[in-house]
Amino acid sequence: MYKEITPNGYGIAIETDEKPLYSAQSEFQKVEILTSKGLGNILTLDDLMMTTVEDEFFYHEMISHIPLCSHPCPESVLVIGGGDGGTVREVLRHKTVKNVELCEIDGLVIEASKQFLPSIAGKLDDSRVKIFVEDAIEYIKDKKGRYDVVLIDSTDPMGPGEGLFTEKFYTNVKESLKEGGIVVAQSESPFANPKEMRMMYRLLHKVFKCVKPYAGPIPTYPGGYWSWAFCTDYTCGANTLAAPEIQDVERAKEIEKNSKLYNCELHKGVFAVPNFVRKISEDA
Amino acid sequence: MYKEITPNGYGIAIETDEKPLYSAQSEFQKVEILTSKGLGNILTLDDLMMTTVEDEFFYHEMISHIPLCSHPCPESVLVIGGGDGGTVREVLRHKTVKNVELCEIDGLVIEASKQFLPSIAGKLDDSRVKIFVEDAIEYIKDKKGRYDVVLIDSTDPMGPGEGLFTEKFYTNVKESLKEGGIVVAQSESPFANPKEMRMMYRLLHKVFKCVKPYAGPIPTYPGGYWSWAFCTDYTCGANTLAAPEIQDVERAKEIEKNSKLYNCELHKGVFAVPNFVRKISEDA
Repeated sequence: MYKEITPNGYGIAIETDEKPLYSAQSEFQKVEILTSKGLGNILTLDDLMMTTVEDEFFYHEMISHIPLCSHPCPESVLVIGGGDGGTVREVLRHKTVKNVELCEIDGLVIEASKQFLPSIAGKLDDSRVKIFVEDAIEYIKDKKGRYDVVLIDSTDPMGPGEGLFTEKFYTNVKESLKEGGIVVAQSESPFANPKEMRMMYRLLHKVFKCVKPYAGPIPTYPGGYWSWAFCTDYTCGANTLAAPEIQDVERAKEIEKNSKLYNCELHKGVFAVPNFVRKISEDA
Repeated sequence: MYKEITPNGYGIAIETDEKPLYSAQSEFQKVEILTSKGLGNILTLDDLMMTTVEDEFFYHEMISHIPLCSHPCPESVLVIGGGDGGTVREVLRHKTVKNVELCEIDGLVIEASKQFLPSIAGKLDDSRVKIFVEDAIEYIKDKKGRYDVVLIDSTDPMGPGEGLFTEKFYTNVKESLKEGGIVVAQSESPFANPKEMRMMYRLLHKVFKCVKPYAGPIPTYPGGYWSWAFCTDYTCGANTLAAPEIQDVERAKEIEKNSKLYNCELHKGVFAVPNFVRKISEDA
């Protein structure tokens, strides 16, 4: 039985086989693949849930299609973290995309995912993808004006991902955008980690003119509910809580057609967050 | 440690004190109150999670404010099940409401909730509330044309709640509505219980002209994600997936002001369900 319990004393439990399918200590963290009947193979890092074969679509569709459908023509995309390859797979479904860079600090995450999570990592070999096994904090520094969309698919703000939650890093990410560029970062659980989420939005508001939270369910994360921050310095509308418009309806309809999650109504609906999430994410 | 694991082998885990605060066997089920640090007191029935003090607002706001704000002037409301009192508490916040009937089969649920969950059950003594400790299947039979809104706040389709998931029962509920009336029923987890949810929507589509799913997070239910069915025979718009309009914006704004969850944007957003939820709920 795999369990992940937050400091608040609640979380998730999953029946897994006793012995991990794969377990290795990298330079950064313990990388494990667990096997389960109900959710397929599972990736954990330092015993924290990253993704499962059965419910990964929630996270990977949410982090990718919302920003990419809010951009008129995303050609160049950077994924930070995301070594399991799920975010890259979804990004590649947008036919405008010419190149995707994946900057993942831990090569072992990529290798384990390719071997044991092929339905998630299977597109990492696509010719449009370039993989950089590097620290994104350094990688981003000289990438001025390069990307249409940057996706921060990081672990939590402790451990190897810690430096990805700083004003300096967000500033460098912003400067890596082309005009009209969009950043989306996973922004923790509004219910289980409100302090971490608030800290993160405070920093994002310092760096970006427009920061909008959006949220949705993730069955296998403690609290079952997750958020992402949509950030841009470009057209965002007067109402900072309103959803960003779909910029290419034809492409969005194409994505909708083969998605388990995404549709054009959901694109707007995920920005209609509960009052307590609005409060956490307000400029403070 | 309290655990609720679905037949699919995953679910929730909560650190609770070893001994229940209250435990009794009623005619229908085992009623227990557990104590936890992170989520306050917890009500379980036959070891299944019903509600916790800290996250109950998700469920109770979703089941009540969506239909009540979709009705121009809800005066008479029936709550079926819901013995913890949380749904009644939220219904009473609508100043149009003149009377609420609660029909709960198990008086022990009401007593335990009044004693150990006062923040949830505290409004059951309100003068507008009448409590009937009866089987709703019988209770509903002679209540023709009586309610503006009926809320089916039931347990799962096994055990004491089983008879609340039949075409005959839904037909009686429909006939208990006044003109313009609305029914909302909890409709299980789209991720964890898709079969039960599909079965339920098949029956609802036979009975009601308009059946719309809406969904949102419930941190302490296995899968973390829950759905409700919005059912009516009255104005519903051509697009069966579109959200029902808010009928009294002033009242909705009043509700928004003091809610942890509900706001007028969320009223629409919760109907923007993922593709896989649409498929489950389609008329089949």
